[in-house]
Amino acid sequence: MKITNPTMKKLLVYYQEMAMIGRIKAVLDWDLNVNLPPKASQERAMQSAYLAEKTTKLWADKDFRKTLETATKIKTKLNEDEQAMVRNMEHAGKFYLKVPSEIIIQKEKVASEAFMFWREAKEKNDFSIFLPSLKELIKIDQIIAKHLGFSENPYDALLDQYEPGLKASYVKETFDKLKPELVALVKKITKSKIYQKDSPLINGQHHYPRPEQERLGRFLMQRMGYDFQAGNVSVSPHPFTIELSRHDIRITTMYKDHDFRDAYTSFMHETGHALYEQGVNIEYENTPLEGGVSLGIHEALSRFWENMIGKNLGFLHFMMPVFQSSFPDQLYSVSEDEFIRLFHIVKPSFVRIEADEVTYSLHIILRFEMENELISGKLDPKDAPARWRQKSKELFGIEPPTDSDGILQDVHWAYGSFGYFPAYAFGNLYGAQFLASIKKEVDVDEELRNGRLEKVHAWLKDNIHQYGSLYLPKDLVKKTTGKELDYKHFVQYLNEKYSRLYKL
Amino acid sequence: MKITNPTMKKLLVYYQEMAMIGRIKAVLDWDLNVNLPPKASQERAMQSAYLAEKTTKLWADKDFRKTLETATKIKTKLNEDEQAMVRNMEHAGKFYLKVPSEIIIQKEKVASEAFMFWREAKEKNDFSIFLPSLKELIKIDQIIAKHLGFSENPYDALLDQYEPGLKASYVKETFDKLKPELVALVKKITKSKIYQKDSPLINGQHHYPRPEQERLGRFLMQRMGYDFQAGNVSVSPHPFTIELSRHDIRITTMYKDHDFRDAYTSFMHETGHALYEQGVNIEYENTPLEGGVSLGIHEALSRFWENMIGKNLGFLHFMMPVFQSSFPDQLYSVSEDEFIRLFHIVKPSFVRIEADEVTYSLHIILRFEMENELISGKLDPKDAPARWRQKSKELFGIEPPTDSDGILQDVHWAYGSFGYFPAYAFGNLYGAQFLASIKKEVDVDEELRNGRLEKVHAWLKDNIHQYGSLYLPKDLVKKTTGKELDYKHFVQYLNEKYSRLYKL
Repeated sequence: MKITNPTMKKLLVYYQEMAMIGRIKAVLDWDLNVNLPPKASQERAMQSAYLAEKTTKLWADKDFRKTLETATKIKTKLNEDEQAMVRNMEHAGKFYLKVPSEIIIQKEKVASEAFMFWREAKEKNDFSIFLPSLKELIKIDQIIAKHLGFSENPYDALLDQYEPGLKASYVKETFDKLKPELVALVKKITKSKIYQKDSPLINGQHHYPRPEQERLGRFLMQRMGYDFQAGNVSVSPHPFTIELSRHDIRITTMYKDHDFRDAYTSFMHETGHALYEQGVNIEYENTPLEGGVSLGIHEALSRFWENMIGKNLGFLHFMMPVFQSSFPDQLYSVSEDEFIRLFHIVKPSFVRIEADEVTYSLHIILRFEMENELISGKLDPKDAPARWRQKSKELFGIEPPTDSDGILQDVHWAYGSFGYFPAYAFGNLYGAQFLASIKKEVDVDEELRNGRLEKVHAWLKDNIHQYGSLYLPKDLVKKTTGKELDYKHFVQYLNEKYSRLYKL
Repeated sequence: MKITNPTMKKLLVYYQEMAMIGRIKAVLDWDLNVNLPPKASQERAMQSAYLAEKTTKLWADKDFRKTLETATKIKTKLNEDEQAMVRNMEHAGKFYLKVPSEIIIQKEKVASEAFMFWREAKEKNDFSIFLPSLKELIKIDQIIAKHLGFSENPYDALLDQYEPGLKASYVKETFDKLKPELVALVKKITKSKIYQKDSPLINGQHHYPRPEQERLGRFLMQRMGYDFQAGNVSVSPHPFTIELSRHDIRITTMYKDHDFRDAYTSFMHETGHALYEQGVNIEYENTPLEGGVSLGIHEALSRFWENMIGKNLGFLHFMMPVFQSSFPDQLYSVSEDEFIRLFHIVKPSFVRIEADEVTYSLHIILRFEMENELISGKLDPKDAPARWRQKSKELFGIEPPTDSDGILQDVHWAYGSFGYFPAYAFGNLYGAQFLASIKKEVDVDEELRNGRLEKVHAWLKDNIHQYGSLYLPKDLVKKTTGKELDYKHFVQYLNEKYSRLYKL
């Protein structure tokens, strides 16, 4: 890939400085989550803010803006790669270029106060403490949406920030079809004769030493094809994947002493993210095509590995002796059936982050519906707690006993991050459609039963990873699977697997 | 401490940005040594270079230079703190402000090639491969010395970069008196009837598990008074201490499987550095007074903890049961005598980095004499290997069998770092003088015999740490100990201890 157009060359110089600062900041962020001593947090925040300010200045640079405008004007004369680069720069810059800086500053101010109020409200189970902040943040996000521009719904402008091109009407249409299918499946599972809510293996009786959990996780990473020469794994309270440079894609994980499943799934989830970044065409290095294209595609891949591979019945058959050799006393007498069931406990609950593969999307649907109503102005924030309880009842059959377990459970709204959640559920849908396509070419179940992950990884690399940010999510799905996104793949995947497991 | 002078206020704003960039760069450097995956080294070098360039630009900023010039002019009207700040800025900026940038760039170029030639020369044991680079680097450093300015000897200008105010004539005078004392002591020790070169405890028969070495190291850090809320400890091939921010002073260590002494001494050495930085007056934060004042004082403190505390006979008496509980099988039958002797094996050798407390300074004296002759032009670089062998014979009684073990052993000259070594030996001298002063107020041996380090730490904090970079090394020693530096304290310390140990 050679860039010859002089405007594009100039644009790339700007991009590369932005990317350089971004990656230096990523080192600070990684370190913040993995190593930072408690007393250093304020100074680290100042260091990060210093770099963020440098980035903002670059986006505001007059010559840069002119260069990007010129690139936009000549876009049709550019080749496919170059066009995508300009599109990505326009998208990344929307927030900086279209939203007045006083509004960005105001949002930061309100959000940092909102976080304190949210925390207090959650602790005291008193939504009224958070209400004024929530109102203000919704108003600010409505103003931001206006500046960003939208045709139907202000919420569209916010969704687009996280998943380019995603529209609320399309999300609603999709979720309206998905919802009854999931609700019905959950009901069937919980009524199954062999339904179990828990297991003596994970209820606190047994201790699973961390060094063994780590050994097992590294074994998985290696089999998945992670390049240990270009990244590493550490521990942090909330697992994440981060790019410190093109050849430094790190993951983190966490360990629970009495449950080995969390580390297992987070190793696979984060490595799924990392394989995407490690697999991008090396020619895209230092261009706006170099990273994964969107939150949705990233979650598609990470959740694909976590659930569709990691919880594949054949792969769990392969993994059981590995787990047994790591925890010989604890798992001495476990049957394969019991072991597999551990990874498929379905429980309607009100806590998103502990949700299983089946109920997870319902938690997202609840948040999407709430956000859509709040941002479009249909729901008064003061009525939000009641609305949350009502929806919870509808989706899970249960109401959270307190607002702390309900509307106050997630921190995201306190940050003003509206529009973020739907990409997660779309990740599940993308992933199931990818799986259906892979199965046309690869005998996935046979491969996994023998612990072989190469062919699956190769398919993802050839069809998704390598393209980086060249294609928008929608186009990528069509190019890769030959069809528009269809939620039915996901429903079919769940129904088949859980019908077999729970003899439905 | 309140800064009211407008010039000083302006100067501080510049300083704070330089310090901010320096600390962000420190995060990158720490990560480089502790975590960086192999394939990411080139990109990390670019990230560091990007920040280094930003710093150079700040030093070159016209308004900054004018501000510093104004501050220099009004210096006599400023208070003590402010005067020291201006002095430190002048000193830190000397290299940037006085040396033309083309010479800095030329040195960087020559040094990066020199490193390759040095490595090849060392591998092939062929000094002639490195000779042209060495010649060129000496020439460049002579030019740099001219720009920096000196009255007697160009080497003075280089020494001053590492230890402000240190002069070659003074170093020579001191070393000329120290040298025969050390040579005589080493001879006496090696001729002692109870002299031993080795021990079955550390010759590879026993394995000392790393987790236990780490546990023991953390125990030491805690006793020394290290603030774990404002720093942490990691592993790196070469141990170091680094300041990532005022409340984030990290150390690293290394472990040897068959010898517990290396980790023990590096824990104490690096924590000694860290206590200095953690103990600086908090009011100096974000001013040019905030760090330790020089390499020499830093090494004085680190080597003080490593040798004068860590290898104190009473403290080793206290530590022996701790070691035995960590390594119960390996140390089951060790006697206290044998245990203490382990830390006092004196061996004339040609390898500096493995040198013991007694011979270490002789290695530095050798390097100082070589550098002084090379930089002042008295010694032709082509005759340097023969001169090295001759000096080695004189100081240690042995000649290195090859140039790789002799003149090519250290990397420092390949970096063009002339003037760096002497501060290490001066550290030993400062440290012994501090110890003599502490002993006037504290019963050090009694305290250490009971494992109590608080009083020693408190003395160092009150008399040295808190002052940060307020006083120059020479003035600090006088203020703290009441006298000019006297090498005899060090000689006396060694003679007393080793006479007792080796029954001389």
